[in-house]
Parts: sequence; C-alpha cells; structure tokens
Amino acid sequence: MRAYDIIAKKRDGMSNTAEELTFLLTRYIKDEIHDDQMAAWLMAVYLNGMTEKETTDLTQVMMHSGDCLDLSAIDGVVVDKHSTGGVGDKITLVLAPIVAAAGVPVAKLSGRGLGFTGGTIDKLEAIPQLQTTLSNDVFIKQVNDIGLAIAGQTQNLAPADKKLYALRDVTATVESIPLIASSIMSKKLAAGSSKILLDVKFGQGAFVKNLGEARKLAQMMVHIGQNLNRETIAVLSSMAQPLGYAIGNALEVEEAISVLRGEGPEDVRRLCLILAGEMLCLNGKVKTAQAGERLASDMLDTGAAYQKLLQMIARQGGDVDTIIQNKLPKATCQRKIFASQNGYIHHINGQAVGTASMILGAGRERKEDAIDLTAGLRVNKKIGDAVSVGEELATLYYNESFAAKIHEAENILLNAYHIAEQKVTAPSLVAEIIKAE
Amino acid sequence: MRAYDIIAKKRDGMSNTAEELTFLLTRYIKDEIHDDQMAAWLMAVYLNGMTEKETTDLTQVMMHSGDCLDLSAIDGVVVDKHSTGGVGDKITLVLAPIVAAAGVPVAKLSGRGLGFTGGTIDKLEAIPQLQTTLSNDVFIKQVNDIGLAIAGQTQNLAPADKKLYALRDVTATVESIPLIASSIMSKKLAAGSSKILLDVKFGQGAFVKNLGEARKLAQMMVHIGQNLNRETIAVLSSMAQPLGYAIGNALEVEEAISVLRGEGPEDVRRLCLILAGEMLCLNGKVKTAQAGERLASDMLDTGAAYQKLLQMIARQGGDVDTIIQNKLPKATCQRKIFASQNGYIHHINGQAVGTASMILGAGRERKEDAIDLTAGLRVNKKIGDAVSVGEELATLYYNESFAAKIHEAENILLNAYHIAEQKVTAPSLVAEIIKAE
Repeated sequence: MRAYDIIAKKRDGMSNTAEELTFLLTRYIKDEIHDDQMAAWLMAVYLNGMTEKETTDLTQVMMHSGDCLDLSAIDGVVVDKHSTGGVGDKITLVLAPIVAAAGVPVAKLSGRGLGFTGGTIDKLEAIPQLQTTLSNDVFIKQVNDIGLAIAGQTQNLAPADKKLYALRDVTATVESIPLIASSIMSKKLAAGSSKILLDVKFGQGAFVKNLGEARKLAQMMVHIGQNLNRETIAVLSSMAQPLGYAIGNALEVEEAISVLRGEGPEDVRRLCLILAGEMLCLNGKVKTAQAGERLASDMLDTGAAYQKLLQMIARQGGDVDTIIQNKLPKATCQRKIFASQNGYIHHINGQAVGTASMILGAGRERKEDAIDLTAGLRVNKKIGDAVSVGEELATLYYNESFAAKIHEAENILLNAYHIAEQKVTAPSLVAEIIKAE
Repeated sequence: MRAYDIIAKKRDGMSNTAEELTFLLTRYIKDEIHDDQMAAWLMAVYLNGMTEKETTDLTQVMMHSGDCLDLSAIDGVVVDKHSTGGVGDKITLVLAPIVAAAGVPVAKLSGRGLGFTGGTIDKLEAIPQLQTTLSNDVFIKQVNDIGLAIAGQTQNLAPADKKLYALRDVTATVESIPLIASSIMSKKLAAGSSKILLDVKFGQGAFVKNLGEARKLAQMMVHIGQNLNRETIAVLSSMAQPLGYAIGNALEVEEAISVLRGEGPEDVRRLCLILAGEMLCLNGKVKTAQAGERLASDMLDTGAAYQKLLQMIARQGGDVDTIIQNKLPKATCQRKIFASQNGYIHHINGQAVGTASMILGAGRERKEDAIDLTAGLRVNKKIGDAVSVGEELATLYYNESFAAKIHEAENILLNAYHIAEQKVTAPSLVAEIIKAE
C-alpha cells in the first residue's frame, strides 16, 4: 500500500477503504507519511468529499489513535454533550447541572476557546481556585459521588485528529463536513460516553454559517454515532445573534449563574431546557423530550440545578462564596457604544462580536495566547428590539493593558449591528432536531 | 498577502493573480512557504484547473526563478524542439542533424530518462567518449561553428519548477494540464530559443494517454508561447505503439543512425520529416511545412544529416568510428518471445514495453539509479502485422547482472501485445498540428 495511491483514489473521486485510512493515519502520526502527502489528500477530501462509510472509518481510526476512556465505573448511562461552538455559548454551565440534578450522571471533558468563540474550561477558570485538571480516578469518583464533573482533557485523546487539525488549519481544509464530523466524533467517542447530544450551531456567530451545511454535518455525525453504536442526537440551533447578553469568561459565568437562579436571558434558559429534555430522554430517565423539558424546568425552578453547580465548584476546589455573593472579578474599564439611527435590530454578527471581545483579551488568536478572564462585552439590544438614536447598544469591558485596542474593538462591535426601519421578530432558537432513523 | 488565502481562492474555484503566484512560488523556493501549503494548493489546482492567464503567469514566475539563457550570440533564428516523452522516442537524434544540415542552428538542451521513457542525453552517452556536459560558451561556439549541439542541462534553469515537480511527484498532482504546460514551457522559455516546436505524444506509450487531453495540453502550451512572444507549434503524435523497433539506449542510437543512412523504420523517418518540415518553416528557412519536408528529405537522402551527426559526435569528443563501423557496445544475453495465437497485432502497450526495458536496466525507476546503456529490446512486429503461433514477436537484450529479472520482463512484454483475428491498419502517426491563431 502506498500513500500516493490513496491520494490518487480520493483525487479521482473514488472512496478510500478502512485499510487505506488506517494506513494513512497510523503512518502519519508516526511521521512515516509527511505533511505534503497528507495536505494533498486533505484538499482532495475537501473538494471530492467522503462517503458516510469513509467518514465513519476515519473517525474510528482517529478515535483509536490514542486513549479511549473507560467510564464503565460510573453508575448509570452517561450522556455527553458537545457544542460546535458559538459566540456567548455558556450552555454547558447551566445544562450540565440541570441534568445532573435530575439524576443523570454528567462526566464532561471540555476544551478551551480559540478564535472568536470561547471554551467552557476558560469560563470555569474565571471562578477563583476552581481546578479543571482532574485525574481519571478523581474525575470518575466525583461523578459517582455528586453526579457531575467538568474537566479539561488531560488524556491523550485522538492525537491523530489533533495533528490533522493543525495541518487543516494552515492548508485551508478546515471547513469540510466529513473532516469536521470525524474530528468531533473521534474525540467524543474516545471520551467514553454511551450517548451523545450534539448542539450544532449555525449562523454568523458559529463556524458553520448556514442551516443546510449544519444539517449535513449533523446528519453525518448522527450516522457515525449510529454506525459505531453510540446513540447520538443533534439539535440545530441558531447563532443569528450571540446567545444571551454576555460575552467573555467571567461575564458568561455570571450570566449562567443568573439563569440557574431563575433569572437571566430567556434564550439561554430556553435552549438549556430543550437540550436537557433531549439528554434526559437519551439517558432513559424520561420517555419523551417534553417530559424531560418539564423535569429540567423543575430543576431550575426548585434551585436544585444551582445547588448542583455550587456542589461541583466546591468539590473542584472553587470559591463558592464568590458565586453566592456575586463577587466574580471584574475588568476596570468600560466603554459604551450607541445607536446612530432609529429602527429595529435586524441582526447582530456574532463573529464580529466574538472578535471584538477577543481583541480586548477575552479570547485567543493563537493557541499559546494568554487570556484576560474579566474582559468581554455585554449587548443590551437583541434582534427585534427597537432602538433610537443615542440609545446604548452594548458595553465593552477591558483592563488598562488593552486600552490601545479599544477603538478597534468598538468599531468592530458597531459594525456588527444591522438596524433597519421595519419591525422584525427574532429567529427561532432551534431549527431542527436530528436523530438516527 | 497570505499563502492560506491564495490556497482558499483556488480551492473555491477562483483565479489566482500574477502577484499571488509570484508570492507563492518565490517564497516556496526560499522555504518560507512549506510543502504542506504548496501540496494543498497543487491539489486544488489539479481539481479546479487554471485559466490560460494563470498558467502563463505561473510559467513566467517559474521561468524567472533561475537562469535564462541568452542565445543572441548564435547567428540565425534558433528553433528548439521538445518531446513530452514516449517509448522508443529517438527522434531528436535524427531530427536535430536534419535541421542543422539544412542550415538552421540547433542548440538543444536535453534531459535524462525517468520511468518507462528514455532521455536523449542517456542515449547519446551510449556513444563511447561523447561529452554531454558543455559550458555555455563552448555550447554556443559549437552551434556557431557547426550549427548543432546537444547537451545536458548544466545551468540552473527554472529551479522553482524542479522543486514543484518533486512535490507533485509524491502528491499525485503530476497529471494536471496547466501544471504540465507551465512546467515544460518554463524550462523551454528559460532555455532561450525564439521558436519552439513541441512533439506532444499521446497514447499508452506516453504520459498523456488520450488525444483529447493531449490537444488541451498542446493548445495551452501554444497559447503560453504566444502570450510570451515565443512562436510555438505543437504536433500531436500517436504513441499507440512504440516508435520504431528499438527500445534502449545503444539500440536506439543504432536505429537512429540507420534512419540517417536512409534505412531504418518508416515511422521514425516519417515523423522526423514532418517535425523537420515544421521546424524549418518556423525558422523561416522555407515558406511552407511541405517545402520543409522536401528539404528535410533531401538532407536524409544526400547523407548530409548523417554527416552532420558524425560532425557533432566528433566535436563533442565521441568515437566516430564506432558509429561508422556499427560497433556500439552490445548486451551479452538475449531472450526471444513468441506469439501464442494466430492473427494480427491490434496494439502494443508502450508503457509495458518501456517498463520491460527499464527492468532490464535500460531505464531508471528513481532519479539516482544507474542505467545499463546496452540493455533494451527490439520488437519484430507492429500494429497491423500478421503473426502465427510460434512466430517471434520481440527480443530482449540484457546482461548477466539482470538475469534474475528476465522472467518478469518477459511476462510484461508478452502482455503488452494484443493479437486478434480481424485485420487492422496502423493508426496515423500525426493526429493534428496546433498553431497559434
């Protein structure tokens, strides 16, 4: 078998076999096949696509390229949740405690943010002293004891995906549905949960810009899960505007806490309930997603979910009083932006909002960048809201060391708003839910 | 400007500008852009193509990446000739002396063989003591003195093409018409002739397998020549079977000599006359290709072309007596293959014939391989010839050190023949001649 022939087959629109994909990836991680051949193959995949079988095979090869977690020591059916990433996406911080409070174990490995979207681990680190690095045994014991653990990935999960992703990043081959699907699913499968809920986001504030592409990606991932015996459901949710009002690590934790206390933005609460309904149903805790939503709603209304998060924070060494007393660290400077015309908000470019926040230190342009956990912004107006000239649209939060960047961030944020005369209603939060046939 | 964006444009089916191609290639040869990004771009070019303008721009960038020869010290209009390579292609050894004998200067840089086709420089080296490495000054002086020089490329011509070709070779991106066209033309343009005759070969014994692709390649190269003010003509010639009867270095020199003496295979003579007619016409020596063919025919019939080759051999230090007395070195072993059925030869797979010859040492699998100048084979029967069971089809020539390979070579050669009951006529030698409008 030769890498050359595997590339040529894909170039000519044919399918690669499981043996060919295994040969390619296992030699690639051993540096026996180099970036040049892999890059040519990636571009051929980008342009000619992959079948469901190829994508499933690739997922399996990448999944088995490193550790595969064994969660069998956890009592009950563990359901994992993954978001494809969106601006202001603090869903995990609310959803995981709701599901855990309802009695379904949540053993969640989360990541850090890159580019215009954030990551759950960065957000959790805005809580003073909270540990996100847990050993395997501690992680599993915590789930068995309190039903909930959210930790950073320390294991060597899907290293082939990691190496391939770095190459895709420089060769303009990231935005390929089979490559995205196998990348996400290889990590989710290696993470060991038996059921997977995917929040596939689409729109300007997400990586996938339109519903059609998001649907294809979701279908592909649901099929991969089905092919590999892990029941998977995908919720297609809109990122036509940022989720909630807060963007930035500490600011988003604050907003998530307010939702857990029964306050907070309606869109965040609504999406959490829909996703929790599906997760509880996937687990078998309830018979229908509707019943799951009602149970989830109870967990919010009774404060059980809020208590569950506090319990997790305490167990992971975090300062619970900071949360209870609303004393999360804050940035020292603020800058407000104002509407320059009368009308209604028609859309808010999430990518621009995320970028403005990143520039002020809330996110990373490169993996190795440090972030400022207190920086970010808060939008005041969302799609459908009326505004008049001079009315406040949003507030930027930053520290002195980023003062030089404030004009750039301000401009990007102002341009993110599209205001027009006609009335408009906000787009629905969830477009579709995709399950295996 | 970023390599990433240049790749993404080509990936999305857009055109790259001259500035983008200059950026990409000049940084690539300086190792500021690496093989991974270049490989992704090459695969995008392979699958999405390039316009005539892009291909011309790429040709210019590669041409100017190294030395450009100045042939202005040569008296008269220098016409270059290039073959895209075919099995048994000894045309240059006959054609160059014909044209030179007719009074048109020939300053030809030739290459070595790789894979199933041979190279003129290897063939010339089968002549004892002949030097193929000439300094620029010696090369030009020889052309001015005797009208003919054939030498190996010593200058740093189109190094960007060389580096890119090596990458194409491992990334399955060789067979792309714009990439082949710009590769050939960048070297031809750097080699300095003002007019170029291209022999674009198609069929199983050539790199381009069918007429349609060969036509596209030829048109692209003729247009590039036109765009860059070098009049270019392309002759599309068939490689439905090997050219002549001999394959292998010394064997092909012997056959070329016999054509120059007025003997030798009719197909080799015929193609040489057609190409010579076009070259003499391109140069302006004659008004029409037909008049050129008549003049070329005279050069063969009077022995002037044969004398011109002997003159060149002597000037380049070669042993002329070896040629005159038919004493070229010979392999020590022979093996004949025979027909196993009655009928007519329908086709002879040139690639298989070339491979059988290569296996016995006549060619190189890798650039660094040494070759056996005496090895090769001679076919006895060609398309349209009648054969009966047990009749001799071909003879393999090899030396003791390759004895272990003889069965493999024999089998490949036997399978190269397709014999059927129906009568058949040989395909015409030249399909089309393509000139700028």
